[in-house]
Amino acid sequence: MKRYEKDMDYSYTLGIFPTIELLNRKIIAVSKIIFSSEINKDIENKIIELCNNKIEYTYDDKLIKKISDKENCYVIGIFNKYYSNLDLNEPHVVLVNPSNMGNVGTIIRTMLGFNYKNLAIITPSVDIFNPKVIRASMGSIFGVSIKLFSSFDEYKETYNKHKIYTFMTDGKLKLNEIEKDNLVSLVFGNESSGLDESYKKYESVVINHSNEIDSLNLTIAIGISLYEFSLK
Amino acid sequence: MKRYEKDMDYSYTLGIFPTIELLNRKIIAVSKIIFSSEINKDIENKIIELCNNKIEYTYDDKLIKKISDKENCYVIGIFNKYYSNLDLNEPHVVLVNPSNMGNVGTIIRTMLGFNYKNLAIITPSVDIFNPKVIRASMGSIFGVSIKLFSSFDEYKETYNKHKIYTFMTDGKLKLNEIEKDNLVSLVFGNESSGLDESYKKYESVVINHSNEIDSLNLTIAIGISLYEFSLK
Repeated sequence: MKRYEKDMDYSYTLGIFPTIELLNRKIIAVSKIIFSSEINKDIENKIIELCNNKIEYTYDDKLIKKISDKENCYVIGIFNKYYSNLDLNEPHVVLVNPSNMGNVGTIIRTMLGFNYKNLAIITPSVDIFNPKVIRASMGSIFGVSIKLFSSFDEYKETYNKHKIYTFMTDGKLKLNEIEKDNLVSLVFGNESSGLDESYKKYESVVINHSNEIDSLNLTIAIGISLYEFSLK
Repeated sequence: MKRYEKDMDYSYTLGIFPTIELLNRKIIAVSKIIFSSEINKDIENKIIELCNNKIEYTYDDKLIKKISDKENCYVIGIFNKYYSNLDLNEPHVVLVNPSNMGNVGTIIRTMLGFNYKNLAIITPSVDIFNPKVIRASMGSIFGVSIKLFSSFDEYKETYNKHKIYTFMTDGKLKLNEIEKDNLVSLVFGNESSGLDESYKKYESVVINHSNEIDSLNLTIAIGISLYEFSLK
């Protein structure tokens, strides 16, 4: 057991909240739970109950300290990385080359908040199983199906019935005026560079904002879009 | 000159983008510009032009390194802290006890994106002039009037013509169904604890989301609300 590295085939939930979410939503991936001796007894009991006699748990302060980068980490979940196929009949969010771990976590949590449970990520991208992503998602990541694609074309070939909306600062259609179909792919670019011109050939969408800023923050743009689609 | 501390009566813009915004939007507060010897010449010339023979500038790699916490900081602006009265005839955002510097910066940038230029902050709160807030706002902070109040009542007494909407996870009115007046105060609570029950006596508003998450992220909730009001 060592600190997280990208090439490991397992990862960690650091802390109570994401570990409980892991056990609630994705127990099949869990290999072990590690408690700190200082954990609150009620929480310890709740987590042991969630382990349901199927998941091994142990107490190891030294290991917690080694794996965690925070002072007050009282429990760690160890789980095997997994990828899921996306649902053919549900709307998708597509992130092209996301580069900020905190953003990706926040986006996943917001997706779950608006019942978007299918996320395609076009690589290169951040490592979605980095504990920082998991923490920023507050464990929501275990409730969303995520699949990686090496190009947008590869994604599009697999899911060819979805109507594609590409979000661009010079998009042609206004978010509040477009038809809100159900079977959509909402496509967002990288935090700094957005989507390149090749995405203009789809139905491109803009969220109107003042000219005082260049663009909305990526997580804000996605939050607004998912909210607007949820009103359909 | 030393690294930023909360009790100083001046602060810093660290980096090109916020320094340009400072000079563009709030030159009256600027006391000095410090360049790194490694700054790109075009950008240096642009910044000198913005100084407009009124602002002193100097070159000091050692000082840049001392003040900045990042490797690649090529320019620093030094400015005097200031507070502004809020416009009596414009809508306000009110943040009650915000505690995350990155969030406050992102919120300020989003406000400017939707033409909300008046921000009331109820203390205790993060130090809004910490360079981390300024960086997260990408310099937008210099385009928004900000005033601190020691209580919500103090704010309300001064700005008693605004219609108050309080955003709460158990709010009574749905965001998309409320009347979008112009002279509003949109009030949001702390990242972890939200607004307490005493804010229920105002028109309380909820942004509907799934029960898969406890609440939307604060910055996302504000982004959605300002977007919705901007459509009025």
